[in-house]
Amino acid sequence: MSDPHQHSFLGSLCHAVKTVWDAGDALLAVSGGADSMALLRGMLDLNQTHSGRLAVAHFNHNLQPAISDNVARWLQQTCERLAIPFHLGAADVGQLAAETGQGIEESARNARYAFLKQTALHNRFTHILVAHTRDDQVETILHHLLRGTGVAGLRGMPERRVLVPPSDGQPEIALLRPMLAVTRAEAVDYLRTVSQDYRDDPSNVDVAFTRNRIRHELLPQLESSFNPNIREALSKLSQQAGDLQEALEQIVHQQLRGALLDVNADIVRLRWQPLNEQTRHVIRECFAMLWKQQQWPRQRMNYSHYDRLATLLQNGGTADLPGGIVVERRGELVVLRRQSGGA
Amino acid sequence: MSDPHQHSFLGSLCHAVKTVWDAGDALLAVSGGADSMALLRGMLDLNQTHSGRLAVAHFNHNLQPAISDNVARWLQQTCERLAIPFHLGAADVGQLAAETGQGIEESARNARYAFLKQTALHNRFTHILVAHTRDDQVETILHHLLRGTGVAGLRGMPERRVLVPPSDGQPEIALLRPMLAVTRAEAVDYLRTVSQDYRDDPSNVDVAFTRNRIRHELLPQLESSFNPNIREALSKLSQQAGDLQEALEQIVHQQLRGALLDVNADIVRLRWQPLNEQTRHVIRECFAMLWKQQQWPRQRMNYSHYDRLATLLQNGGTADLPGGIVVERRGELVVLRRQSGGA
Repeated sequence: MSDPHQHSFLGSLCHAVKTVWDAGDALLAVSGGADSMALLRGMLDLNQTHSGRLAVAHFNHNLQPAISDNVARWLQQTCERLAIPFHLGAADVGQLAAETGQGIEESARNARYAFLKQTALHNRFTHILVAHTRDDQVETILHHLLRGTGVAGLRGMPERRVLVPPSDGQPEIALLRPMLAVTRAEAVDYLRTVSQDYRDDPSNVDVAFTRNRIRHELLPQLESSFNPNIREALSKLSQQAGDLQEALEQIVHQQLRGALLDVNADIVRLRWQPLNEQTRHVIRECFAMLWKQQQWPRQRMNYSHYDRLATLLQNGGTADLPGGIVVERRGELVVLRRQSGGA
Repeated sequence: MSDPHQHSFLGSLCHAVKTVWDAGDALLAVSGGADSMALLRGMLDLNQTHSGRLAVAHFNHNLQPAISDNVARWLQQTCERLAIPFHLGAADVGQLAAETGQGIEESARNARYAFLKQTALHNRFTHILVAHTRDDQVETILHHLLRGTGVAGLRGMPERRVLVPPSDGQPEIALLRPMLAVTRAEAVDYLRTVSQDYRDDPSNVDVAFTRNRIRHELLPQLESSFNPNIREALSKLSQQAGDLQEALEQIVHQQLRGALLDVNADIVRLRWQPLNEQTRHVIRECFAMLWKQQQWPRQRMNYSHYDRLATLLQNGGTADLPGGIVVERRGELVVLRRQSGGA
């Protein structure tokens, strides 16, 4: 048997969690399934050479209590044996869903994330690690594709996002997905080399009906009928879409900064010419970014409003926009003004 | 019955073929199927108010001669009745495929396009119109997605491309797809309102095995199991990807122009600083565009080579690239040199 400490899974995990070692702490969200058990064992293994504070957080959704209580007990014992702190949370998600009128999936997710945040805050963790794999990512991308979320949806789940913003000297809490480059099969293979068993979590209700059909029906069908490498293809597409959007965001940022003359909460003045040289797409994105920076109301601003601003740049004139924003182009100047009555 | 001259199909077609009316000519590629018969009748209808020179070109692939000869005869008679010039081409595509070792589909396509180009040249047409619909476009996008052609593949078939470049005073010949915004159902509905029949073309071998499964199995399945509006979703995705890439191309063009100090066939000098401020994605695209503009060999240049150039910008040093191109960054200067021995 090959050396488990050399397993490719560890190389990939190691590459992804560098930021965590700098910060020195990681709260691992562990369901007891193969993916999260690989995260747990992998982080412990890596921690032998890098040192950081680790703990496990497990949430019992109580959807099939007889089973989920057993999983929780088994995981607690496993963590004792592995000498890693164990935090247990629980809720009756079925009852929560009935009370709030939300779906089971949404209730489970809300309750679990509330527990993860609280556990991180109380125990001063600044990183929560979850065990989504490349398979989860591909399913997410395909799900987004089918739902029609556009190019933005192709990016799938981010490797890192802020879960709790910093406040009152409290540092931010980030959610990390260090296993997005790892396949489920690779995680299972790694568990085999370290002789670690796992439990299929009956309360893993995130895998909802649609997601289940994507995983068990559509993806296998696409693999066998159209392209055996469909997962790689979707991964690559996602990566490319991310690169493209990131590049564009930076450019939009530069262009907007280059065009800004002066700015305060209610009035922005822009130079017309550098903006007008851009494609309509970049112009629309510049205004969308400006709205965001100004924290002007964006709920009622849609594509056609931003597109109207691109037309206004070309033809001159005035536009009244939602939230009491009036935009005027006069010669070389574009003036955006938020009316005091604007909601 | 509603007035066929007001049919939404005509509005859409009219919007798409404006350039043709400016140029005044259109050679219509017509198989006799519903889509191309709608193109033929639609262009004739629009031609009553706009005047242009129109003709039909039909290619008999002779794959099932008994049927395809009948279709050709029927189409010729239809064109006589409609008073539009008819050009007929023919080849034994089965035999061509056997002789060249190419597949039936590729042989059919090559023979048909050779005929279309020749007919356009001999009869001084500068536009060839083909009848691909939004359904064809969605199938193409899905096919590209499944094959893994990346973000570029999401754009699908272009609305316009140059088929024969200009030469010796001969203007270019463009291929136009004015029906990409029209659904197949809309085309069929239009044919009904003008009481025009059509023939399913037995030699329509472009609809190959994979494409057929996408059309008849996968798309209906995605519609019924995942999203009834999947076609709109893929169309929108394609449009967005196109906008994004177009915006990026323009920006890459600007950045490259802004960084160029001097350029001749074998030496290019760039300012380092403005390039290095861009994201890696933009830097890679700048070099790819430079290679294209310089007509340096690109067959052996892949992602990792362009990425190496991005690293070189950061760290300085020298890189030897395929085709005998040597790149060096010294301080504020990036020098690209094509060695005389380079192939």
